[in-house]
Order: sequence, then structure tokens, then C-alpha cells
Amino acid sequence: MALAPPLRASLADIFGAALSTDPAECLVYGYDNSRRQAAPDAVVFPQTHEQVVALVRTCRAARTPLVARGRGTNTTGATVPVAGGVVASFERMNRVLRLDPANRLAVVEPGVLNGDLQTALKPLGFFWAPDPTSSPYCSIGGNLACNSAGPRTVKYGAPRENTLGLRAVAGSGEEFRAGYYTSKGATGYDLTRLLIGAEGTLALITEATLKLTPLPAAKRVLRATYSGIEAAAAAVSRIMAQPVTPCALEFLDDEALRLARRHGGEAIPVAGAMLLIEVDGEADFLPAAEQSVARAAAGEGLLEWRSAANAAEVDSLWAARKALSPALRSIAPMKINEDVVVPVSRLPQLIAGLKQISEKYKIPIVNFGHAGNGNIHVNLLYRPEDPAQAAAAPGCLAAVFDLVLALDGTLSGEHGIGLVKREFLPRALDPVSLELMRRIKAQFDPDGILNPGKLLPD
Amino acid sequence: MALAPPLRASLADIFGAALSTDPAECLVYGYDNSRRQAAPDAVVFPQTHEQVVALVRTCRAARTPLVARGRGTNTTGATVPVAGGVVASFERMNRVLRLDPANRLAVVEPGVLNGDLQTALKPLGFFWAPDPTSSPYCSIGGNLACNSAGPRTVKYGAPRENTLGLRAVAGSGEEFRAGYYTSKGATGYDLTRLLIGAEGTLALITEATLKLTPLPAAKRVLRATYSGIEAAAAAVSRIMAQPVTPCALEFLDDEALRLARRHGGEAIPVAGAMLLIEVDGEADFLPAAEQSVARAAAGEGLLEWRSAANAAEVDSLWAARKALSPALRSIAPMKINEDVVVPVSRLPQLIAGLKQISEKYKIPIVNFGHAGNGNIHVNLLYRPEDPAQAAAAPGCLAAVFDLVLALDGTLSGEHGIGLVKREFLPRALDPVSLELMRRIKAQFDPDGILNPGKLLPD
Repeated sequence: MALAPPLRASLADIFGAALSTDPAECLVYGYDNSRRQAAPDAVVFPQTHEQVVALVRTCRAARTPLVARGRGTNTTGATVPVAGGVVASFERMNRVLRLDPANRLAVVEPGVLNGDLQTALKPLGFFWAPDPTSSPYCSIGGNLACNSAGPRTVKYGAPRENTLGLRAVAGSGEEFRAGYYTSKGATGYDLTRLLIGAEGTLALITEATLKLTPLPAAKRVLRATYSGIEAAAAAVSRIMAQPVTPCALEFLDDEALRLARRHGGEAIPVAGAMLLIEVDGEADFLPAAEQSVARAAAGEGLLEWRSAANAAEVDSLWAARKALSPALRSIAPMKINEDVVVPVSRLPQLIAGLKQISEKYKIPIVNFGHAGNGNIHVNLLYRPEDPAQAAAAPGCLAAVFDLVLALDGTLSGEHGIGLVKREFLPRALDPVSLELMRRIKAQFDPDGILNPGKLLPD
Repeated sequence: MALAPPLRASLADIFGAALSTDPAECLVYGYDNSRRQAAPDAVVFPQTHEQVVALVRTCRAARTPLVARGRGTNTTGATVPVAGGVVASFERMNRVLRLDPANRLAVVEPGVLNGDLQTALKPLGFFWAPDPTSSPYCSIGGNLACNSAGPRTVKYGAPRENTLGLRAVAGSGEEFRAGYYTSKGATGYDLTRLLIGAEGTLALITEATLKLTPLPAAKRVLRATYSGIEAAAAAVSRIMAQPVTPCALEFLDDEALRLARRHGGEAIPVAGAMLLIEVDGEADFLPAAEQSVARAAAGEGLLEWRSAANAAEVDSLWAARKALSPALRSIAPMKINEDVVVPVSRLPQLIAGLKQISEKYKIPIVNFGHAGNGNIHVNLLYRPEDPAQAAAAPGCLAAVFDLVLALDGTLSGEHGIGLVKREFLPRALDPVSLELMRRIKAQFDPDGILNPGKLLPD
């Protein structure tokens, strides 16, 4: 659908050459890592807060959908412009405005890549905790919009735990600042956390003040293999009940290991399940930390415990986990990848239940993920060209969610809701919570122009 | 003002003997640590979630103010029922519902005392991070309402960083659950953090799922004295820029030390300023941690560095800080105690600026507090019976806030806004943020019955 000429003219006034309505360019900004797609009517590339204010006001006046976009690495369709309208790609609004180690903070524009920020912080002895696997390619703005996490979250938290303040433009066109430049604050309602994880449905973030963490002096990479998934899941629960918090505690089930081995070679062990564990801190402390984790990891079903002695061994231990995503893509391009989360002690029940569901629906399920948070990537490897599997897939997915919710878990640990999990949200939230979210949305975005069709169900 | 008989009857139906309209009892629930006072028309003592639901609906139907109260240890008048109505004291809703170390969480009712929870957690090897000085006497519900922190926050965070989920009843009378039983979640807007720090103006919390932290194996208590406050403030900034995060970093200025010494005896050192520092972790790690902090603490103006070798020395090092609050109360019962916060690197400017303000307005100012967060308790010791000081006090306080805001700080680090800082809130927040907060309030509490006259200015 073409933009109405007055809207086009207004956008051209604001953005000049940084506006595109070329269908070929629009196409590129219409998909993300969800493999969903919808063409926007225009793409704009803001470089200043003032442009974003003008953009939101213009779109609101024209009642035109506006979708903020980082680098489109999300897996839920959160940036797919299903209602058309304007995509605002923040890729050119990518300045690091302040690196301030004395106050343990950094001020950045939303288009800064996560990996670029980490690189800038490293010489100062700090890092920003959220570390999605897509870190080199994903933007801070996207991380904030989706509350994106990563392996390190088990020790250091997600964006909601690592953001001090935001500057933003609500869907109403009103600009505001939320939060603080300080590590503590009790001055009014927490609008900062409200915007984080809201997937661009409340406001567009134009600046973020991020909380920095000192880089640990050293790290040790450990690997435990188990005879079966239940044994490994039980070990995760024991590891999290002892005092040394790992800075990564990743899990791969037997199917995941088999796949990784096929793709990544024979260095990857044959086992019923595997844990990849990292502990960090002062170098002197690491032997004691390893010992404490190893004690918890030991028990029924432990096959082998390995500790990487050098960089090559670190790479070798991580090889299975790294080989996994491309392996999954190659064997099952249409896989459904859920990132459910349950209390850690419920992991054995989750894994056992998933196995039953897989058998019942005759759809292979591969499980891996951030076990220290109870956050498992459940991959339903169905072939849409197989009519039986295609028919069984929705029931299978519903059964996965029912299982997770019955175990006191929730639908998403870090990927968010976006387009693909929207219809399931009422299962995870009580009706009043959902209604309160809708009412909050209406206060920030009274005409519903921001990212329509995402997160909250109609 | 007496309750209307139908309202009284409804409350009696819900609460039976756990309703009081006896003026003598009401009086006791009309003040808090702010020294403000106002009599409620009734006090009720809920023991169940269902009673709270019925209470809110009854008060809403009668358009009667309803003020939730923990133990009244807040200093801002947040629990003073300035508009009369009903006070709901949660002191009898005080069960620990679940201690779940395997999932690093505890589920509690709001009336559980912070100190009682810590005592219950200790044998399990865990603690809940927020530790207000009033820990033995203050309730978890109050901690959540005010986002109350304490010395440990510098390393472990405040309630917003340490709460996984809540059960609550909005001012509309609608009950809901927010958040998760997991350490990670990306399923909709963050209503949990929105309620934390809202001072009971949005909803009444009836249950909280708290995130637990493993108890450190050991702790070391350190003390540094300096020739002047600027030297100490500069050292704080250096300490926070190095990788070892202290689990307490407390500051006392010269006036505070003098007062403490008068009250607490000669063990308290004579100096221009003092830092009290704690580092924690594995015992083996503490010497290296001390060394790293000591290196940062050294520099111009350092007079003495001491490390406590035993429990008696720990008590002796903390003596100055502990003697301070009673000392202040005794010499200046009408002191104004602000808990402003600035970025840590601005502490030298804050402290120097406060000295100038004290001289200009001829009002003694005593400063101490949680320096690692830049959170300073600024005590204006004015005597209301001195007409010159009484006249100067409002200007002096306004000058303090202007200074703090000019340094990128904010009005409150941990005490909140309540009654006493409400009129200053528009200085700290931009008008749009304030307006968004008002709109959010109207969604949760459409008739404005919850804690009227608090936090948000009229």
C-alpha cells in the first residue's frame, strides 16, 4: 500500500534522503529471524531524538502504523510490519554517547550493536551483562525492546536488571525521560522497566543509560556429560542450589548432541545429555568455584567431567553448543523454536514431559538452552510437507505450553511474544494482568500506532 | 470522622474482630517514622488475599481512602492516612509460604518482617538482598512499596532487582498476578516492577515471590579515614571504578563523625570524613579483594586504613555508623533527612556544594550514607524555634534539591516520596513522565482510593 502523499511529504521533510519507499528496500525491512514477512510502505532511518519525535507525531496524525526496528534478529516476528505503515530502522542512530566507568554506566543510542559496545567497554574493564547469541549483530535497542538475555543472564541478569534509564517517545508523540543516572532511585513509578520488554508497543527508545559490570578477572570452562536428560536436569537443580553461581550453565539433550555431532564433528561427545558450565571471578578463586560446582554436578548418571586447560580446549568444549543452531537450521528450516522457562527444580519434569509429548505427537523435539535460568529452547522439528506432522504441530505446541504452565513456568524467557506467541499470551497471564497491560498501552499509545498486532492479543 | 454505618458493617462482615474503630487504636496507625500524623477512621488487619479483595472492593464502593501499612518505618509519611479512611495493617498477614532454595526463591505474605525472613533463610545458605537499617522491624510489603534498599544494595540491588513476582489487588478491586516463579521472563509488560516503589498507590500486594542470593562465605570489614570530605568522596569514586564491588560502602562526613563520637565514645575516630567498607566472598578471595579496594582508597588525604581482625573490631569499626541515627535524633528531633542520590563521580561536587549551602543558609548539615550508590543522607539540623533558621529551611532544602538535580542526581535513593517530597517531584521528573504516571495510576485505581495524597502531586 502506497503512503498517502501528505504523509510521504511530511516524512521527506523530516528525513530527506533517509526515507525510502522503494519496494525493494522496503522488502528488506519487512522480515526478521522469525521467517515471517510483511512489506512496510516506507522505511526511515532516524539519526536524532528530534527526528523520532517528529516521526511519531507525523505517524500519529496520519494514524499510520510505526514499527521500530533494531537489526531484526528477534525470532518472534516482533519487527514484522504486519499492518504496513512505516518501519523506523535505528541502524544509523548508533553513537556511544558516553562511556563512564567511574559511574559504572554507558549512555548509548539504540542502534549501537551489543558486540560493539562490549568491544568499547573491554579496555575499561567493564561489560554490559545481556549477551544474546546474536551479540555481534543485534542492537541495544532491540535487546531492550525484547528484554533479550543470553547465557550470562544466569549470573548477571537481563536488560531489566541492567538498565538505569531511558529517553523515549511515547506513541502519543510525547517525549520523556525515565529512570536515573544513578544505581539507585525511588522517585516515582518505574517507567524504565515498563518500556523494557514492551517490544516497541509503548514508546520508541532513543537513548539508554546502561548499568555496567566489572569484567571478571578469569573464567573457567567446564563440561559434564550424563547418561540421560533427567540426570542432567537434576544436576542443574543441584548446581543452582549451591552458592557459586555459574556465569553460564547451558544444557543440551541427547537429540541436540547427536545433531551437533553430525554437524560439528567427533570432538562432540556421545551422551544422553551435556552441561556446559562457566565460572568466573578472581583467578585464585576459580579452583574452589570449580570444586563447588563439580560436587553439585556429580551424582547418578554423570559420565564425564572435564575442565578446559587452555583456549583450544575451551573452543572444543563449546563446539557442541555452537554447532547446534546451524545444524538445526539445516535439518529443519521450519522448526518451531520456543524458549519456555520453568523453575530450575522443575527441569527434570519438563524434560521428561517433553519426551512424552514428542512421542505422542510423533514430532521430534530437540532441547537445549540456558538451564541455569530454567530457560529451555524447545525445538519442534516438524516437516510441514508431512500432512500428519503438519496436522499434529499445533496440538503438540499447545501441549508444550500446557506442560510449562503446569510447572509454574512461562511462555518466554528471553525471546518475547511478538507475533508468533501472541495468541498464547492469555494462557500465561491472568485476564486482569492482560487487561491492565492493554490499559497501560492505551495511555502511552492512544491511537494504537506503535507495532500493531504484536505482544498483546486483539 | 466516623465511618458511615453501612461501610462499617461491611468491614465488620469481612474482618470481624480484626476491625477497629477505637480512636485510641486508630491513632497508633496514623503515624510513621516521618513524625507526620493523621487519624484513620478505621484499622483492619487482613490475614488472607480474599479479605484484601473484599476490602478494596468495599472501600471503592464507598469511595473511601485505603492506606496499606507494613510497620510504619518509612520516613516520608507514605503510610500516614492524610485523607482519613481505612488503614490496612498487614502485620497479621505474615506467613512465609515457601522457602525454595533449589529455585533460589521465597514466597511470602507482605507482613513478614525483613529480619525474620533473613533468619529463616540463613540456615539454607541464602539471603534476600534488601537490608534497610530497620530490617528487624520493617515488613517485606513495606520494603516493596518503597523500593527500600540499604547498605548491601551497592552490590546486590534493591527490591526491584530482587523480586520475581507479585500477587496484588488493584485499586479497582481487581486481583491479579504479575511476574514469574522463574529468574527470567519476557512475557508481557513488567507489572511487577511497576508496583514496586509505587507506595501502595496502584495496588495492595498480598504475596511476593522474592529472588534469593547465596550467602557469601566470608566478609571483611574495613575502615578508611580522610583529612576531608572531598578526599573521601573522591576515594568512593575510585573504589567504584575498580572491579571488586564492596557489599557496603558507607560514608560519614566530619559533622557526622563528631556527633557519633559525642554519642558513641572515643573509639570513633577524629577525622574529616570516614568510609566504612565491607567486601565479601570466598574466604580465600578476601585478601585480594581488600588489596584492590585499599589501592583505590589510598591517595591524597587518606589518614588511616584499618581492617577488622575479629568480631570485636568489626563492632568497633561500625560503631560510628550505628551511633549516628540516635545521636541525630537526640540533638535535632526536627531535622530534615533527605536521601538524595547522585552519580558516584559527582560525590565530591555534592559534598562541596552542601557545605556552601550550609554556610549560606546558616543551617548545619550532616551527611552520611550509602556512598557506593551515591546515596547520601543529607540531614538539615534546623531548630524550628529559631525564627531565622525556620525561615531559611525551605530555601535551604530547595537549594539541596537544585544541587542534586544539577549533578544528574535524583530526590530519593531509597526512602521514596510519600507525603514529604511530593511537592518536589515535578523538579525531578519531566512533565510527560509525571503525566504518564498519573495516567497509569488512573488505570489501576480509577477512583483514587489508594493512599491519596502520596507520591504524585495533585
